[in-house]
Amino acid sequence: MHFDYSDRTKALMAQLQAFMDDHILPANQKFHDLAHQGIYPLEVIEPLKARAFQEGLWNMFMPELEPEDPGTRLTNIEYAPLAEIMGRVPWSPEVFNCNAPDTGNMEILKRFATPEQKKRWLEPLMMGELRSVVGLTEPDAASSDLTNLATTIRREGDEYVINGRKWFSTGAKHPNAKLSIVFGVSDSAPDADPHRKHSFILVPMDTPGVRVVRDVPIMHHHAPEGHCEVLYENVRVPLDAMLGKEGDGFMLAQARLGPGRIHHCMRTIGQCELALELMCERALERRTFGKALADNANIQDWIANSRIEIDNARLRVLQTAWKMDMVGAKDARIDVSAIKVTAARLQTQVVDRAMQVFGAAGLTPDTPLSYLWTWGRAMRFLDGPDEVHLKVVAREELKKAKSAAGRNLAHYVLPIKA
Amino acid sequence: MHFDYSDRTKALMAQLQAFMDDHILPANQKFHDLAHQGIYPLEVIEPLKARAFQEGLWNMFMPELEPEDPGTRLTNIEYAPLAEIMGRVPWSPEVFNCNAPDTGNMEILKRFATPEQKKRWLEPLMMGELRSVVGLTEPDAASSDLTNLATTIRREGDEYVINGRKWFSTGAKHPNAKLSIVFGVSDSAPDADPHRKHSFILVPMDTPGVRVVRDVPIMHHHAPEGHCEVLYENVRVPLDAMLGKEGDGFMLAQARLGPGRIHHCMRTIGQCELALELMCERALERRTFGKALADNANIQDWIANSRIEIDNARLRVLQTAWKMDMVGAKDARIDVSAIKVTAARLQTQVVDRAMQVFGAAGLTPDTPLSYLWTWGRAMRFLDGPDEVHLKVVAREELKKAKSAAGRNLAHYVLPIKA
Amino acid sequence: MHFDYSDRTKALMAQLQAFMDDHILPANQKFHDLAHQGIYPLEVIEPLKARAFQEGLWNMFMPELEPEDPGTRLTNIEYAPLAEIMGRVPWSPEVFNCNAPDTGNMEILKRFATPEQKKRWLEPLMMGELRSVVGLTEPDAASSDLTNLATTIRREGDEYVINGRKWFSTGAKHPNAKLSIVFGVSDSAPDADPHRKHSFILVPMDTPGVRVVRDVPIMHHHAPEGHCEVLYENVRVPLDAMLGKEGDGFMLAQARLGPGRIHHCMRTIGQCELALELMCERALERRTFGKALADNANIQDWIANSRIEIDNARLRVLQTAWKMDMVGAKDARIDVSAIKVTAARLQTQVVDRAMQVFGAAGLTPDTPLSYLWTWGRAMRFLDGPDEVHLKVVAREELKKAKSAAGRNLAHYVLPIKA
Amino acid sequence: MHFDYSDRTKALMAQLQAFMDDHILPANQKFHDLAHQGIYPLEVIEPLKARAFQEGLWNMFMPELEPEDPGTRLTNIEYAPLAEIMGRVPWSPEVFNCNAPDTGNMEILKRFATPEQKKRWLEPLMMGELRSVVGLTEPDAASSDLTNLATTIRREGDEYVINGRKWFSTGAKHPNAKLSIVFGVSDSAPDADPHRKHSFILVPMDTPGVRVVRDVPIMHHHAPEGHCEVLYENVRVPLDAMLGKEGDGFMLAQARLGPGRIHHCMRTIGQCELALELMCERALERRTFGKALADNANIQDWIANSRIEIDNARLRVLQTAWKMDMVGAKDARIDVSAIKVTAARLQTQVVDRAMQVFGAAGLTPDTPLSYLWTWGRAMRFLDGPDEVHLKVVAREELKKAKSAAGRNLAHYVLPIKA
Repeated sequence: MHFDYSDRTKALMAQLQAFMDDHILPANQKFHDLAHQGIYPLEVIEPLKARAFQEGLWNMFMPELEPEDPGTRLTNIEYAPLAEIMGRVPWSPEVFNCNAPDTGNMEILKRFATPEQKKRWLEPLMMGELRSVVGLTEPDAASSDLTNLATTIRREGDEYVINGRKWFSTGAKHPNAKLSIVFGVSDSAPDADPHRKHSFILVPMDTPGVRVVRDVPIMHHHAPEGHCEVLYENVRVPLDAMLGKEGDGFMLAQARLGPGRIHHCMRTIGQCELALELMCERALERRTFGKALADNANIQDWIANSRIEIDNARLRVLQTAWKMDMVGAKDARIDVSAIKVTAARLQTQVVDRAMQVFGAAGLTPDTPLSYLWTWGRAMRFLDGPDEVHLKVVAREELKKAKSAAGRNLAHYVLPIKA
Repeated sequence: MHFDYSDRTKALMAQLQAFMDDHILPANQKFHDLAHQGIYPLEVIEPLKARAFQEGLWNMFMPELEPEDPGTRLTNIEYAPLAEIMGRVPWSPEVFNCNAPDTGNMEILKRFATPEQKKRWLEPLMMGELRSVVGLTEPDAASSDLTNLATTIRREGDEYVINGRKWFSTGAKHPNAKLSIVFGVSDSAPDADPHRKHSFILVPMDTPGVRVVRDVPIMHHHAPEGHCEVLYENVRVPLDAMLGKEGDGFMLAQARLGPGRIHHCMRTIGQCELALELMCERALERRTFGKALADNANIQDWIANSRIEIDNARLRVLQTAWKMDMVGAKDARIDVSAIKVTAARLQTQVVDRAMQVFGAAGLTPDTPLSYLWTWGRAMRFLDGPDEVHLKVVAREELKKAKSAAGRNLAHYVLPIKA
Repeated sequence: MHFDYSDRTKALMAQLQAFMDDHILPANQKFHDLAHQGIYPLEVIEPLKARAFQEGLWNMFMPELEPEDPGTRLTNIEYAPLAEIMGRVPWSPEVFNCNAPDTGNMEILKRFATPEQKKRWLEPLMMGELRSVVGLTEPDAASSDLTNLATTIRREGDEYVINGRKWFSTGAKHPNAKLSIVFGVSDSAPDADPHRKHSFILVPMDTPGVRVVRDVPIMHHHAPEGHCEVLYENVRVPLDAMLGKEGDGFMLAQARLGPGRIHHCMRTIGQCELALELMCERALERRTFGKALADNANIQDWIANSRIEIDNARLRVLQTAWKMDMVGAKDARIDVSAIKVTAARLQTQVVDRAMQVFGAAGLTPDTPLSYLWTWGRAMRFLDGPDEVHLKVVAREELKKAKSAAGRNLAHYVLPIKA
Repeated sequence: MHFDYSDRTKALMAQLQAFMDDHILPANQKFHDLAHQGIYPLEVIEPLKARAFQEGLWNMFMPELEPEDPGTRLTNIEYAPLAEIMGRVPWSPEVFNCNAPDTGNMEILKRFATPEQKKRWLEPLMMGELRSVVGLTEPDAASSDLTNLATTIRREGDEYVINGRKWFSTGAKHPNAKLSIVFGVSDSAPDADPHRKHSFILVPMDTPGVRVVRDVPIMHHHAPEGHCEVLYENVRVPLDAMLGKEGDGFMLAQARLGPGRIHHCMRTIGQCELALELMCERALERRTFGKALADNANIQDWIANSRIEIDNARLRVLQTAWKMDMVGAKDARIDVSAIKVTAARLQTQVVDRAMQVFGAAGLTPDTPLSYLWTWGRAMRFLDGPDEVHLKVVAREELKKAKSAAGRNLAHYVLPIKA
């Protein structure tokens, strides 16, 4: 067992940190000013992308690159501390072509797309030339159970016809969003296998019938790229728009979720670190009733608990990343569920304390805390609510318990002496 | 001891509930549509105000009315269940002239203003003809300790000159906001008594030098009436704009806060009830993995815990209101601090569970939950952060302990047998 | 609504408090010394009982007394603050003939026993001349679901034959324990109505086949009166030992539990007050790192939170007692479940903080804290685990939600704007 | 970074696990039966010790062994999973000569004793031939601040004279306890440096004036070896009984605590695993209201949360052990404080859930849960209360914040736009 980052990782961390300090952070104000005016800050992002590409900080999230693919070629354990660093500035991952949902979309295109589909969509995505969305969650279905999703993908001659309403389609407001990967029912037979009745289909955003209805704010917050409600009304695409085979939807959705979930966790660690740093700085600076906030034992407890909880969670994120490298996302899925729950709770907990130290300022957009807190709340739903992940973990534990005939627990529970 | 509402209260509750059902709720959509367009929904509110005035549901918050004053004349214990009912629709209190900060402003004007000040400001406020703000919290001071506030009120000949920056001035965006009651340092001598160096002064909003700088969103949420940052630059008012005597500021601020705090608590109870109702309805309706959400024991626990916590808190709010009626706000201040902390925690706790039952929809503005949750978070600062209230309660408890010579605790802590 | 104790209650509180201060507390050391030596401290208790009887502080728990019955004749709301006072010294209720499980046993005997049964058992119980136990929980059944209990009461000629193993029979070690009221299956037909298949039967403790197997410590603590495991092997009693009718067991068990549960809650309040007093005293007295513990803001928070939580819970206990007086235990059963959960949680929470202030001394028997804490943990099972009570509360809430067609929640959940 | 146990560790884990399964667990009943009769179960332990010594499972806790010392020679990271395994049976560490406080005593003797002291005390300790205690905590001092400890070590001619009262001297009831290492004030000058005024001194238990006053139960539980109160009255020892130099006490106490603390944490992990296993088994087996406890979503959540929290904590224990191996206990002390707090909280949390699943049986000594829970509570004091550890962590964090001029936090907190 060994708990130190590799030399390669340390070098990349230093390189990325320098990039953040020298190029991202100085642009943070301008990014927000433009976004505040309703302008997607491409003028901030595009030059930074060019520089990141040139520096070789590109597609860092993707472990399995072909020789010809652009990107840094990192394992999950190498990527984790880099995602943590990017997490501190929520808009920065796009600079490195590491932003959701493009990351997940690239992953399933890489693994399941036909050569033609890759040519048309994956290659420009990997070059950062276009952006994509995913159409999964629906307002009218309890979407934590994917089998409830009701959008239809009906074959009609040599076309598929898509009808349904999706929401939380992140990125649909992005000026370069060209592709939507839509999840829907392709086999509506009443007796269809619930895990084989859905498919993913590739829908160009400019197809007639696709309409971005509104940008749904998350806890009142509008992301510059939008978390949009998208309506699909009689949207027609050719047969070769199907991703994988008909009925593969559920399987692809599962494949897509593992890495996405852990990337969220990695960024959470960075965001919690930022909140802790801000909390300490403020606690040292502000004085009430004759002493600095930092001199109060209750605030010291908040700081210490935050330090402890962040360090505990980071380590588990790293272990899960390492396990994904060793055995694959599928066999690490219990760990992913475990760390997803841990990270989602961590974020609201740590940021909540930081806000309290900031007083009313913590409620305002003048600090990143209000966003980090409401985003943390959203994390408890993103890619599955906590309760679904807990169920996954519990089921596994009970399965182990059932098959643990040899554990000899009887020796611990001593017979009643009578 | 007796725990039933009086017949008068029950009749008023029924009357107000009918008003809400018949007039307020049907207007809720229109209110939000207008507010969403940036229009303060006076066209919704004003006709409802006229009706409420006519029905005698007016100034219900104010216990001490003169015979000539308009209003319902209620004690705090009578008002509490009515405020709970209004709390369910955050914009409704204005309809009954019961909205903060006008309520607190009316209270201190009633108790401390000169006849001329009352004529000019209090009378139209009590008729609902104009609105007011209060300038207390400052971005550059740790405002939970009022003695830190640094805005200056400097006497210069027959005028006071005001300089400073305030924020969280609720209502400053309201089209009828005409008066700001500003708290600042009137005695800047280095050795001034910290509790006698501040004053409140009455500043017409249209005085030169008063500038509403921006509306500060609270956890990304913009209230229609605004929680504004207001800059005061060389604002000049005549000497008779002083409220009370020079140096009374701290005392007036304290007098102002008691009722305001408990009104927040009363409304919280209503908001939590609403969240619980929504949670139950949703849990019954949505199904995942083959059963209704309401059939899951963890969700049942959330419902039960919410029911229990709301009922416990409501009762304590009522008791505190009753105590304020019996002994006055000042002597009930420990109880007010206690219930303020209880209510603030309750709101985020109960609403959080409701959101989780709603899934991603809970994050959107389609339900009131996202607002109720972020507002609940703000409640942990409003009128004093939890930590200041806890300090107040602890200090009292330790004072009692010090003076409890007769408690004979030694009989409980048995001597070491050796 | 009115929150003050009645004059009668205040006078009784003063009288009881004086009794505690003058007679109980000075005997506390001797009680514990004897109990420590394994002697049930009758020599302490009996003279105090005589005095309490004489003073008219007797059977205070029992609201429905006949003119000829000895006792103080109190409503539940009158009894609550008295039980709180007694709660501070766990052995003191026996002095006033108010100790479990005799209280519950007297209640069901009063309501359901025949005149002969009353003569033999109830009258001496109400005079404090003998003690009784109840045989309900079984080690081999998940007893929170009473229908699981498996002890058999088989009719054989003109006798009933009882076989089974009970535990947590409180009081079975008491030298005057003469009666056990045993719950068992009297109708073992496979299709028997699960709520009509059990009965309660009166078993003299000296009947052949009754054997106190062991005193089961609760979290390592042996109560002087014992929480015993009792084995019933072919125990034969005559037919007139049946309490009520065959099949009444479930109904009687329910009737028995309401008052017993709220008495626990009342005593919890007193025990938490004691813990808070001890915590304050210790925090003022002990110094670390150059200041008194009481000067640390985290410890102040513990004190304040304890004060707040105790006051909130007490009020709800009182309201529930009042409701029991108004509508009866059965119709107040949701409230009883709610307050039972609240009180059980309160006790471990408040006492935990007090222990932490005491440092290692909090772990020892030198203070009452270790007992109060472990007993608080047991409270989460006593008379039903928290989870069963939460289920009761949730079921009621969901029932209300289902039938609330008129609540018009749709006006709160605004339609999706598209 | 690499998260797998080494091959050597895995082999040792398998060997130790087999030893536990084959030799320790089958003896568990007998151990408890003897202990219950007040007999220290040497007849169980001694043969097992001989076997463990022979198998080379000996002194596993001690990393720095001389070639001539008996023992397995493990690093902390190698020892951690072995301590976890031993932790499941609280009496088992003695079998492997790995039990507190002998471990800590051996460590400081190894590092600071003279050759004569080693010959007399360390060698037989390392062979398991005698047992030792440590006299640190005092009932009359707030002992979490070591500088408060008041036992005196006064030089008088060629002797030291010791006077004071210690408690929580673990092991003082052990039949082989021969040595007490006592902490006291050797420099009572009023202006003495508070960190140089104490010393540790070696006191044979049979020295006149040493008296084991009583065995203090921890939350009512008497350990077989005792956590004793020991009185030292005019105890005289020669000058060469001083351990290290006069005034070294504080430094030695610090040196002693690091490893001891992490050993507690390691065992906690094992105890929590056991509780989780028992919880799962019971939840699968017991049925209420028509289904297995394990089918309830709230109980599934308890299981999942326990799994998650245990795994998170174990990993951090391992990382801390590794860091101690890399940089030494002193430089890992912040990590030790962090994991100490984490583990202490974990134990009560996980075991509490397991108890609730067991129902009333969880309160009894029939399962290990009641002991594990009360011991977990004690863990929040052992080797320093949580609050002291939190203070250590907070102080470090604030120190980092003060010196972090280069973090450029200003780029995150965007200037107020006005």
